[in-house]
Amino acid sequence: MTTAIRSEFDRGIALAPAPAEPGRYHGALDPGWQIGGGINGGLLLAVAGHALSLRHGADGGHPDPVSITGHYLSAARPGPVEVRTEPVRRGRSLSTGTASMLQDGEERLRVLATYGELGTGPGGVHTSARPPQLPPPEQCVGLADAPKSMIDQAALLERLDLRLDPATVGWALGKPSGAGRIQGWFKLADGREPDPLLLLLAADALPPAAFDLGMPGWAPTVELTVHLRARPAPGWLRVSHATRNLADGYFEEDAEIWDSADRLVAQSRQLARAPRVR
Amino acid sequence: MTTAIRSEFDRGIALAPAPAEPGRYHGALDPGWQIGGGINGGLLLAVAGHALSLRHGADGGHPDPVSITGHYLSAARPGPVEVRTEPVRRGRSLSTGTASMLQDGEERLRVLATYGELGTGPGGVHTSARPPQLPPPEQCVGLADAPKSMIDQAALLERLDLRLDPATVGWALGKPSGAGRIQGWFKLADGREPDPLLLLLAADALPPAAFDLGMPGWAPTVELTVHLRARPAPGWLRVSHATRNLADGYFEEDAEIWDSADRLVAQSRQLARAPRVR
Repeated sequence: MTTAIRSEFDRGIALAPAPAEPGRYHGALDPGWQIGGGINGGLLLAVAGHALSLRHGADGGHPDPVSITGHYLSAARPGPVEVRTEPVRRGRSLSTGTASMLQDGEERLRVLATYGELGTGPGGVHTSARPPQLPPPEQCVGLADAPKSMIDQAALLERLDLRLDPATVGWALGKPSGAGRIQGWFKLADGREPDPLLLLLAADALPPAAFDLGMPGWAPTVELTVHLRARPAPGWLRVSHATRNLADGYFEEDAEIWDSADRLVAQSRQLARAPRVR
Repeated sequence: MTTAIRSEFDRGIALAPAPAEPGRYHGALDPGWQIGGGINGGLLLAVAGHALSLRHGADGGHPDPVSITGHYLSAARPGPVEVRTEPVRRGRSLSTGTASMLQDGEERLRVLATYGELGTGPGGVHTSARPPQLPPPEQCVGLADAPKSMIDQAALLERLDLRLDPATVGWALGKPSGAGRIQGWFKLADGREPDPLLLLLAADALPPAAFDLGMPGWAPTVELTVHLRARPAPGWLRVSHATRNLADGYFEEDAEIWDSADRLVAQSRQLARAPRVR
């Protein structure tokens, strides 16, 4: 779970086991992961996912999230954080457990997840999914092109090297396409290579797909589920995400993450509250 | 949650509160809901979802599942079942809780879910999703056309009125399309009208999409998440489900459920173990 470089991401998800309290871990949420009023939901899932990785990795040799679901209960703030894990079932190839993230006794996030070891299953692949078609990163829209007002609201953006497909950023110029799709290249600004826990961040790091429906604004995640399908190769990730249905004040957002070896390494879906339209 | 007809489904998910044990419920899994060696996973989710509906409906006026995730831990058998619910957070418009389903002290299913009241959000709908194109039910493939060997393995089928699109049943004749898609009409054989809990069954009632990849056989669900997007209108439901990526021994299965008023009433995704290919 660590790389040669001790990166901002590794520091961001770092956890220390609580003495004499098995399955409890302490960490700190850094203000550099903020977006809007709180800490990014993907980073929170990576912190909770790290705790479960420590627990299931040690208990049963199942260090990798295979399917992980988080329900977001209250906005997390910079500062100390505690994660309490509870094993549910330990099987031969998969282990299931829960994690609860707390700040000052208030629960921020509840997680239910099944862990295993990626890349140990049968080798056959049958994929009809295709990677997103993107111009090369240098022809995409990066942080240097973003309005300062956006960066001020999203410290997170400075930790990422996010290059959005110019065809899907019309919303930034007041011209959303209406298709509900945003896609681009993703890596960490400090060059830290992808691993399963980083995919949890990548699943919730792009601007909400509702922006492209002409609904800019805060879209709090109710629930986010990520399926990890392969261990990612080094290099750029490609992330595409889209919504197909906004109704009753909620919209879903489906993301696919592809690695540099053209493998679909993660699929995610979240349910988010639609921004209020003024 | 009940209709004028006391249907097999209502009996199947019926629960009695345990005396003096708040949040615990007792029920019975009927052999009529079996498929393969166990009870159908959608029915199990509906039973656990019913327990949470009783809990959150009474506690906070939030009777409807909005996002519900189940992790399947061991195969459920016909017979008595206990569901233990625990509230996690009660909010103004949403409540989150967990449910644990047990038989003889062994956990079958762990659920994490957020409940609310469907149809009370802002009215705007923005949908690019389109309902599946299906021939009328009488031109589709029903139970009368299914091989007896299939019905013997799936008592469940006799409780459903499932009419599969002939274009997606080539697998039954040894000619899978390879597209990984199966779709059709769905209602209960006894005419009981759809409601949110029935959508949990409908999300896992069609044959596995892997059949259409030429992989017939048992495909146990690891995890199933259902988003409920609207209260379904009476009448037929249309269910389409498909897989886009089978790798490392797992495949995802995305389902959409549309009601007779052409509304997308539920979206689901599951991660399942791929059948062993002989």
